[in-house]
Amino acid sequence: MTAPAARSSESSEPSLEVLVGQAVGSRSIGELADLLPVLSEDLAAVDRRLQSVLPAQYRQLTDAASYACSTGGKRVRPLLMAAMYRAFGQPSTVAIHSLAAAFQLIHTASLVHDDVIDHAELRRGRPSVPRAFGLPAAIVTGDYLFVRAFELAADYTRGIILRCGEACADLVEGEVLQEASRFDLTTGREHYFRVVERKTAAIIAAALASVAEIGGSATAVVDACATYGKAVGIAFQLRDDLLDVYGDPDLLGKPLYADFREGNPTLISLAAYQRLDAGRRAEFERIFALRRKQPGDLLRLRNLVDETGAYEVAAREATEWAERAVRSLDALPRGPYHDLLDRMARGAAVRPF
Amino acid sequence: MTAPAARSSESSEPSLEVLVGQAVGSRSIGELADLLPVLSEDLAAVDRRLQSVLPAQYRQLTDAASYACSTGGKRVRPLLMAAMYRAFGQPSTVAIHSLAAAFQLIHTASLVHDDVIDHAELRRGRPSVPRAFGLPAAIVTGDYLFVRAFELAADYTRGIILRCGEACADLVEGEVLQEASRFDLTTGREHYFRVVERKTAAIIAAALASVAEIGGSATAVVDACATYGKAVGIAFQLRDDLLDVYGDPDLLGKPLYADFREGNPTLISLAAYQRLDAGRRAEFERIFALRRKQPGDLLRLRNLVDETGAYEVAAREATEWAERAVRSLDALPRGPYHDLLDRMARGAAVRPF
Repeated sequence: MTAPAARSSESSEPSLEVLVGQAVGSRSIGELADLLPVLSEDLAAVDRRLQSVLPAQYRQLTDAASYACSTGGKRVRPLLMAAMYRAFGQPSTVAIHSLAAAFQLIHTASLVHDDVIDHAELRRGRPSVPRAFGLPAAIVTGDYLFVRAFELAADYTRGIILRCGEACADLVEGEVLQEASRFDLTTGREHYFRVVERKTAAIIAAALASVAEIGGSATAVVDACATYGKAVGIAFQLRDDLLDVYGDPDLLGKPLYADFREGNPTLISLAAYQRLDAGRRAEFERIFALRRKQPGDLLRLRNLVDETGAYEVAAREATEWAERAVRSLDALPRGPYHDLLDRMARGAAVRPF
Repeated sequence: MTAPAARSSESSEPSLEVLVGQAVGSRSIGELADLLPVLSEDLAAVDRRLQSVLPAQYRQLTDAASYACSTGGKRVRPLLMAAMYRAFGQPSTVAIHSLAAAFQLIHTASLVHDDVIDHAELRRGRPSVPRAFGLPAAIVTGDYLFVRAFELAADYTRGIILRCGEACADLVEGEVLQEASRFDLTTGREHYFRVVERKTAAIIAAALASVAEIGGSATAVVDACATYGKAVGIAFQLRDDLLDVYGDPDLLGKPLYADFREGNPTLISLAAYQRLDAGRRAEFERIFALRRKQPGDLLRLRNLVDETGAYEVAAREATEWAERAVRSLDALPRGPYHDLLDRMARGAAVRPF
């Protein structure tokens, strides 16, 4: 495997101000600015913990793992975990650093294997791991990140390890479900939500439930945190789907229309499919099912979607899930971190990247 | 993903008598026959534990995972673990069932991903998982088996979970190392042993060290069990390499010459390469480096190997590692299970499949 020079994670990642700004909407960052130095240090500590487990004896594996972990991700999971733990009044997040690093590694591992499965060339403006290091190395690097994640999880109780494991099983199951519905628009919205709940939401729900448990919360609060995590995850995914059709590829760091190209039936495509008249529906279905689509095919799908108002359907769903997330925060103590979690949920549904 | 009918694991696996017979040599099975009913029940219990964690919510994933776990493997790892635990005088192996199931799942997961990387069509006489279920499903199924393994490991102490994790990291590292030396005969025997120690031996060493620890053994005994596991693993791999060139494909359930085809430099190829005169060495190197080899190429490699006595080099190494394993058994109490472990180590170096 040939190794491109690994960039340091510091230089490639957006600043926390940008991260939080895009998550909560830049208008409202002002009042939460006081939290940034604290959360910034939390994220840096989680990153140090994560980096500490990456080195392998063999340099090439270390390089590929570091590359996968330094692709300028939004670090939404560790940010939510730190904010939630602090919302319980905890003065330090040291007790959750290993857990946050573990969930970040699990997320990264799944992206690496996703990029193998989806033949993705780019991830956040850089060559994907399979593109940069080759397919065998990408499979193995994903495995390595999973393994390191579970080693980090060994710092916690059996209950938390098992919750982690179940969320990983859900994640994997979501990938299988998604694979099964590829190029198929007849699977419907129920199937779509089954995929999203497993593939995106379960991990965030498990991460935040675990944070609440480590913070000593009662079961009802743990459950509320899981609900918040699940709802934020779904809002986040719905917004991701929208950005794949209507976003700015420069901000996203990847070309648009990946879901069209790979035949992933998102809520947008499903809503469009349902709303088109018979003739156009047949056209939409035919193009969507093409294994190799030309640029003109992708634009035609986009134009057909435009005509149906599917954008509004998905945007409304995203907002509804964000509101569900916000309601579940009633179980948490009031305060600035509570406010931040509120804004992050709302921001997940409207962020520009 | 299209699912071939999953075979039940019971019907597809060789009987314990055959398993132990091939491991210890059928001449000596007689005196150890009394152990078979006990070990047979141990293996069945490990298998029940393993099967209990396979079901996913989505049937297709359960099917692929079950298929991967029911390919009639030799179950060497659980057999060694049960025999070792009983060698300490333990009347029941229930305390190690989850661990043995975890290691069996890790082994299976790595085979599934190996078959993706190596484009293997067959595994033990049946279509490999990527062949039967497709490449995306195979990647995901491997991930799923890793996840379930770590859930099983959560039954144990942090120290044992971390030892498991380190062995998995070694396993993955061995795969990267192997990948890095593919089609390259200049890497030498040191590199070969680095690969084998990580890819094959580390997991067996960790499994047996953990068994000793769970049995309450002193550190020196735990270390001796790790040494036994490592040495058996290396003997086993050396024999595997030999069988790939000199074995009976019907007994093996797969065609010969996979290592030639995939350009894996085994000790046999390395010894042959070293011993050939300049002209034939250049020919051997040229054919070995071909990414697509014809049947005639494979036979030519085999004939060149035949001329060098590389078979004897690798066979002697296998026997030496088996003897190292046997010597490390001095740390264990004498008795029938001690004898079985002795025979299994010697058998690993000479088994016919």
